[in-house]
Amino acid sequence: MDEFELIDQIFHRREDQKSWVSVGVGDDGAVLDVTPGKQSVVVMDTLVSGVHFLHAQPADSIGHRALAVNLSDIAAMGATPRWATLSLTIPDFDGEWLRAFAEGFFKLAQIHGVALVGGDTTAGPLAISVTVGGEVDPAAVLRRSGAKSGDRIFVSGRLGGAAAALSCEEASTDRALQQALWYPEPRVDLGMELGRLAHSAIDLSDGLLADLGHVLKASGDLGADIEADQVPLFDASVSLLEYRRALELALGGGDDYELCFTAPDKAHQELLSIGSRLGLEMFCIGRITREGGCCVRGGPPGLADITSGYRHLWRK
Amino acid sequence: MDEFELIDQIFHRREDQKSWVSVGVGDDGAVLDVTPGKQSVVVMDTLVSGVHFLHAQPADSIGHRALAVNLSDIAAMGATPRWATLSLTIPDFDGEWLRAFAEGFFKLAQIHGVALVGGDTTAGPLAISVTVGGEVDPAAVLRRSGAKSGDRIFVSGRLGGAAAALSCEEASTDRALQQALWYPEPRVDLGMELGRLAHSAIDLSDGLLADLGHVLKASGDLGADIEADQVPLFDASVSLLEYRRALELALGGGDDYELCFTAPDKAHQELLSIGSRLGLEMFCIGRITREGGCCVRGGPPGLADITSGYRHLWRK
Repeated sequence: MDEFELIDQIFHRREDQKSWVSVGVGDDGAVLDVTPGKQSVVVMDTLVSGVHFLHAQPADSIGHRALAVNLSDIAAMGATPRWATLSLTIPDFDGEWLRAFAEGFFKLAQIHGVALVGGDTTAGPLAISVTVGGEVDPAAVLRRSGAKSGDRIFVSGRLGGAAAALSCEEASTDRALQQALWYPEPRVDLGMELGRLAHSAIDLSDGLLADLGHVLKASGDLGADIEADQVPLFDASVSLLEYRRALELALGGGDDYELCFTAPDKAHQELLSIGSRLGLEMFCIGRITREGGCCVRGGPPGLADITSGYRHLWRK
Repeated sequence: MDEFELIDQIFHRREDQKSWVSVGVGDDGAVLDVTPGKQSVVVMDTLVSGVHFLHAQPADSIGHRALAVNLSDIAAMGATPRWATLSLTIPDFDGEWLRAFAEGFFKLAQIHGVALVGGDTTAGPLAISVTVGGEVDPAAVLRRSGAKSGDRIFVSGRLGGAAAALSCEEASTDRALQQALWYPEPRVDLGMELGRLAHSAIDLSDGLLADLGHVLKASGDLGADIEADQVPLFDASVSLLEYRRALELALGGGDDYELCFTAPDKAHQELLSIGSRLGLEMFCIGRITREGGCCVRGGPPGLADITSGYRHLWRK
């Protein structure tokens, strides 16, 4: 059993569908109808050493990442982040490590105007759990479930960089790929703009095909046609790993923390100009179809079966 | 360096004192002035196996406890809990354990009308991190900092039961003491009533003297006189451990999850009638003084130096 089945089976409770829970478990974040006029958004992500990062990587990159993955969920809801809580479990006291960790965390928090409002530290195996709360205009909530047949499929930024950095020694020391792995930039500003334009959105943490699969399923078992040659790759990934492997990692690698969203044709020009204003590359990589699952068209011969992304598997 | 110093040094940032953060890091929870008319309260606590619970204890008691310790913080802020997020890190998939864990969690959630709105599960060493959000009338926020010289000091319920259960084999199998350790009851209903009456409040997690010390410090270095014979003990604790040890554990043991609060004389009668209405024992154990730290008066001869409660210590 994997984490998705586990959550479905044990943690989806009907009694949590209270009238004021507008979006509960199962999307990138929860939307709570508590504030008149505004909705609160709450997200949570835990990072475990050896699973989501290596203790050996720079501590500031771990602090950055712990907040970034949550802000990425906030962005995928179209919300404005406001506050965070941080739970830090550490095996040993190491002041230098902790200061660097905090530096990475707060630097990113400051960029996005996020206040750390609570949390705790405990002794134990290195793990970090962060909760972030934000607000969103009820009319601008981005969900996974709004995709429509005929929508264009977009992604912000290039994909597969983090997975490439993890794939071999040479790629791991490439500056652009290492940056993608260690310091992913959550697309918060973009998420806030998309509320008016996009039909659906998700952040890419498990891999493009896996995450797009969540959107297709949530939107009523729609399909998607992805044009292989439109999937944006890192130059370094292509040159170090060859095109086919770079594409495979962009489709199935995970840890991109870019936004994938769908929007009607008429929004295309405005989306490109938003990207230009925010200094973000935006790519249209295909279309939503009525059915048929997710197809990658025009890929190179011998493209490996793309796994359905990263899942935590337990021994059973 | 212990966790309090660590938090002070690294995680208290001036930039987090935003205008809409009414109470930030340093109290039992954060109070955010986001909602017109209501304030949001957010709390977070992490439990690590072997530190905060034993993997061998019933899984439902671990689920109960993970939520209870957070609800206790919510209660200490005078708030009404609304939502929770849960991060669960588990080494192995064990469906039976997980179901029992969830049972304990949701049973308590239902009692208090709390919706689980998000979270994640990851593979790794057993640890649980929970964030709870609630709401409070801005005029009814309970802080640590409001104690006044002359206030009476109250506690809800009896103290030292959990610590007694951990202290010896015989006590660990006593039903009342085991219940206090495994299934602490957060005093949410009481907290909501106290906003109008109490000057300050804290929940007892680190031990009475340590937690009362936080109140005294936050209220401007006040003092406290505790009457030893008024400190409410568990009968089983006294009979199994003898009076002196039971008192020591009530003063310094921790893990009580009762509320300790201060209120003026005129509130005494109304507090007792609230206790009676809620079916809660309430005890006046002493008074706040102008200075002089925390004194325990009339204790038995040979009362051990009471430690300042439970702190996580790292090797340095």
